[in-house]
Amino acid sequence: MKVKYPNPSIKVNKATKPKTHGMLLENSLNLTNEYYRNKNIAFIYKKPTPIQVVRVDYPQRSRAKIVEAYYQRASTTDYNGIYRGKYIDYEAKETNNLSFSFAHIFPHQIDHLLKIDEHGGIAFIIIYFKKVDEIYLIDIKTFNKLYQHGLEGGDKSIKLDKISKVGFKIDLGYTPTIDYLKIVDKLYFASGDV
Amino acid sequence: MKVKYPNPSIKVNKATKPKTHGMLLENSLNLTNEYYRNKNIAFIYKKPTPIQVVRVDYPQRSRAKIVEAYYQRASTTDYNGIYRGKYIDYEAKETNNLSFSFAHIFPHQIDHLLKIDEHGGIAFIIIYFKKVDEIYLIDIKTFNKLYQHGLEGGDKSIKLDKISKVGFKIDLGYTPTIDYLKIVDKLYFASGDV
Repeated sequence: MKVKYPNPSIKVNKATKPKTHGMLLENSLNLTNEYYRNKNIAFIYKKPTPIQVVRVDYPQRSRAKIVEAYYQRASTTDYNGIYRGKYIDYEAKETNNLSFSFAHIFPHQIDHLLKIDEHGGIAFIIIYFKKVDEIYLIDIKTFNKLYQHGLEGGDKSIKLDKISKVGFKIDLGYTPTIDYLKIVDKLYFASGDV
Repeated sequence: MKVKYPNPSIKVNKATKPKTHGMLLENSLNLTNEYYRNKNIAFIYKKPTPIQVVRVDYPQRSRAKIVEAYYQRASTTDYNGIYRGKYIDYEAKETNNLSFSFAHIFPHQIDHLLKIDEHGGIAFIIIYFKKVDEIYLIDIKTFNKLYQHGLEGGDKSIKLDKISKVGFKIDLGYTPTIDYLKIVDKLYFASGDV
C-alpha cells in the first residue's frame, strides 16, 4: 500500500482567520495555564495560529518583516500539554447562542481528539456560552455521540440544556480564572486526588 | 545624539526567524510524523512558528491578508504529541560542525523539557550532524548534565564524539525517514514491545 503524503510545498489555504473563540476566552485560558505552570501543576500551552508566510522583507539587518502571509486552518486543536503524567488536548469554543452549532468545530478536529482518546490521552472540548456566562467541559466521546446523533437526525447544534446535562460546568474564579483541571481530576482520574 | 523612543504599540522583537533547523530536517520529521499518524502509531505534530501579526488587510471579502508581521521566539519546543499513552516533547536542531553549540538551544527550552520529564513525559533533543549525515536522540536529563557541566567548565559546545556515546543514533530510511520512535521504545519503554 502506498502511503499518500500531501505535497508540503503547496499548502492551499484560502481560509480567513478561523474565529474559534474571542479574546476574553483565549486570554482567560492562557492566564489559567500560566497559573498552572507557575504552580508546577500542568504544562499546557496554546499552539500558535498557523500562518503561511509568502514574502519576507529585510528592511533592517536584524529584523525580518513579513509582508505577505495568510492564516491557515489549524491541523489539530488549540491547546495541548501534560497533566499528572497524561497527555491532554482540547479545543475551546464560544457561542452567543443558547446552543452550540456544529459549524463551530471542524470534523478533523473531532477526529484528532478521538485519536488522542484512543491512544490514552485526555481529550475534550470547552464551550463558553457567553449569554449565560457559563463554561462547560465535554469529553470528546460524549461530544462525538451527540455530534453523530445530530448528523443522523439532521440536527445542526446541541442545546445548552443538553450540554449542561452531559458536560461539566467549570467554576469561574480569579486565580485561576477557568479552573478546568478540577473537572479533569473528577472526570479522568478515578480518585480525584493528586 | 538621537534619543530612541520605544514604540509601545509594538512588542519589541528583534529576532529574525530562529534558524533552529533546515528544511530537509523539518520536512523529514514532518513526513515521519505523518507516517506514524497514518499507521496509527503516534500523534505528534510540529507546532506552527509563532508570528506576531501587526496589520491585516482585507483585499477580498473571503481572505485576510497579513501585511505586517514578525517572527517571535517559540515559548516551548517544536514538536509534541502522544505516543503509547505518554506525552512526548522534543526539539530538533542541526549543525554544520562536528560539535553542537549551546548557542543553538535556548535555556527556556531546556527548562521546558526538564519540566516535561519531571511530570512523567518523554523529553529529548534530536541533533542532525549534516557533515557526517548522522542524527542522534539525546534524553533531556543527559543533555542537561552535559550542558551544565559545559557552562561550569567554560565549554560552549558538545563534541559529536561525546554525543555519539551518550546519545542514540537514529536509523535513516525511506518510510519513515527518521525512525526516532524505535529509539524512544528502547530508551523509555522497558520491554521495547508495544
